[in-house]
Amino acid sequence: LIENEDPQGLDALESLYRFTGNAHVVGITGPPGSGKSSLIASLVQCIRQTDRQVAVLAVDPSSPLTGGAVLGDRVRMMDHHADPGVFVRSMASRGRQGGLAWATAELVHLLDAAGFPVILVETVGTGQDGVDIAALAQTTIVVEAPGLGDGVQAIKSGLLEVADIVVVNKSDQSGAEEARRVLRTTLDLARSPQRPRTPVLATCATQSEGIAELECAITSHLSWLNESGELARRRARALETEVLVALRSSLQRILLENSARSSRFVESIDRVVRGDITPRRAALLLSDQLVAN
Amino acid sequence: LIENEDPQGLDALESLYRFTGNAHVVGITGPPGSGKSSLIASLVQCIRQTDRQVAVLAVDPSSPLTGGAVLGDRVRMMDHHADPGVFVRSMASRGRQGGLAWATAELVHLLDAAGFPVILVETVGTGQDGVDIAALAQTTIVVEAPGLGDGVQAIKSGLLEVADIVVVNKSDQSGAEEARRVLRTTLDLARSPQRPRTPVLATCATQSEGIAELECAITSHLSWLNESGELARRRARALETEVLVALRSSLQRILLENSARSSRFVESIDRVVRGDITPRRAALLLSDQLVAN
Repeated sequence: LIENEDPQGLDALESLYRFTGNAHVVGITGPPGSGKSSLIASLVQCIRQTDRQVAVLAVDPSSPLTGGAVLGDRVRMMDHHADPGVFVRSMASRGRQGGLAWATAELVHLLDAAGFPVILVETVGTGQDGVDIAALAQTTIVVEAPGLGDGVQAIKSGLLEVADIVVVNKSDQSGAEEARRVLRTTLDLARSPQRPRTPVLATCATQSEGIAELECAITSHLSWLNESGELARRRARALETEVLVALRSSLQRILLENSARSSRFVESIDRVVRGDITPRRAALLLSDQLVAN
Repeated sequence: LIENEDPQGLDALESLYRFTGNAHVVGITGPPGSGKSSLIASLVQCIRQTDRQVAVLAVDPSSPLTGGAVLGDRVRMMDHHADPGVFVRSMASRGRQGGLAWATAELVHLLDAAGFPVILVETVGTGQDGVDIAALAQTTIVVEAPGLGDGVQAIKSGLLEVADIVVVNKSDQSGAEEARRVLRTTLDLARSPQRPRTPVLATCATQSEGIAELECAITSHLSWLNESGELARRRARALETEVLVALRSSLQRILLENSARSSRFVESIDRVVRGDITPRRAALLLSDQLVAN
C-alpha cells in the first residue's frame, strides 16, 4: 500500500512513524556483476546466527531478488523466505519523480517501525542511485569485483566518496588483490581525519568467505556512529533530504495541476509565443507569483 | 554567455527574443554508433548546395563534434568551419537541472534570432534526451543502424513514437534492409491517420548516399507542418514545455535558498526527527505554506 502511495498505507505510516528511529539502515551498492545479491544472502545468514531479525529491500531492477538472471542467488535468498526472522522485498525504482530515495525511505520507515534492527538496502551502484542510498543509509557498503571492465568501477563512478566500508567481492578471481590495493591507496589518499579509516575487505560471497569480517566491520561502524554522535546527524540529514525530495515532488504536482487551468499561465505562454518575453522571463514571473514570501 | 547563464547573455537573449520564430528546428537522435554525426555532416553539405545557412548544435557528450573518438567525422565537420554559412557548436549536457532541453532551447532561440533558417540539434537517443529533443524540434529524425545489438534500438527505446522521419544509416552493412522493413511495419501498425506516413529512409552517410532524399523528406515535412497548422502548434507546445522546465527549476532554486534559513523548514525537520510527523506530511505542510492560492 505504501509503495503504491495508497492513502490507507500512508495513513498507517503516519500512525507507525513514531516507532521509527531504531533500525540500523545499511546500504549496499556497487556495479552490476559485483555479486551484491550473493553478498547479501551470505550476510543475512551470518546476521541470523546471532538471532537478530533482518529485512532486505532490493531497489535494483536487474537484481536477482527482483527476478533477474542469476538463479543461484535467487535460490539462496529463497532459503530465507521460510525464515520468519527475514523479510525480503524487491521493488522497481519505476523512474518515479524524486527517484528511488523517497519510495524506499518510506518502506524503510515501515520496517524500522516493525522492529527490524537491521535493514539492508540493495541498489545498483551506477549513476545517482548509489549516491541516493548513501543519503538514506547510516552505513554504506560499496561492493566491487575484479574484471568488471577497465579500471576499478567504484573509483570511476564516484561511489568511493560515500563508502563507509568497501568490499572486493569474488576474491577468488584474478585481479582481486590488485583491486583491493588500488582501492586502499585511493581511500588513504582521500582520507578525512574526522572519520575512521574505511575498511577494504575481501569476500567470496558464494563461499561465505570474509562474511564474518564484513559483519564485524558493520557492527564496528555502528559503534562509531553511536559514540561519535554521527548516527543522530546522519538520521537527521536523511530525514531532511527526504523532506526536500517530497517537497519538490509536492510542488511539482501543485505546479502541473494549477498550470493547466491557470489563466496567468495561459497568458504567459501567449506572451512567449508572441515573442514578447522569453520563456525564462515567463518562468521567473510565474514563480514570483506562485511563491509567497 | 547564454550557456553559462551569464546575466549579460540572458539580457542579450531578452532583446533578441522577438526576432525568433522563423527557424526550422530539426532534432536528430539515435543510439550511439548509428552514425548521427556523419549523417549531419553530409546533410549540412547538402543544405549548403542550396545556399541556405545552417546551424548545428551537438548536445551529445560522446559526439565526435564534442571531441569524441571518430576522427573521420570530426575532420568532415571541420571542413565546414571555414564556411561562414555554417555554425557548429557542441555543448555538454552537464547534468544541469531540467536536463538538456532548457539550455539547448535558449541557444536555439539565439541561432533562430541570428537568422539561421535551419538548426540541426543532435542528441544521443537513449533515455530522456531523445524524447526531450522531440519536444524542442519541429521535425524529429530518428537514426538507426544495423548491428547495434539485439533488435532495433529505436523500437526498444520508445523513440519511434516521436519520429517524423526514420533513417536507417549504414545501409551498406548487412541487416540494413531488414531493419528498415521491421521499422516500416512497426510504424504502419502504429500509424495515426492525422499524420503523414513516417518515411523510413536508407542512407550511407559516409558515401553521401540517400542524403538528398533525406533533405527532401525534411523539406516535405516542413511543408506539411505549415499547411496543417501543426507548425504553430509545435512551436507553442515547445515554448510551453520550456516555460514549465524553467518554472520547475526556478521554484527549486527558491526552495533550496529559502529552506536553509527558513525557521519553518528547520522546525519541520525537528518535528520529523522527533517522530511527530512523517517526512511526507512535513513536505505537504511546507508546500501548502509555500504556495499562495
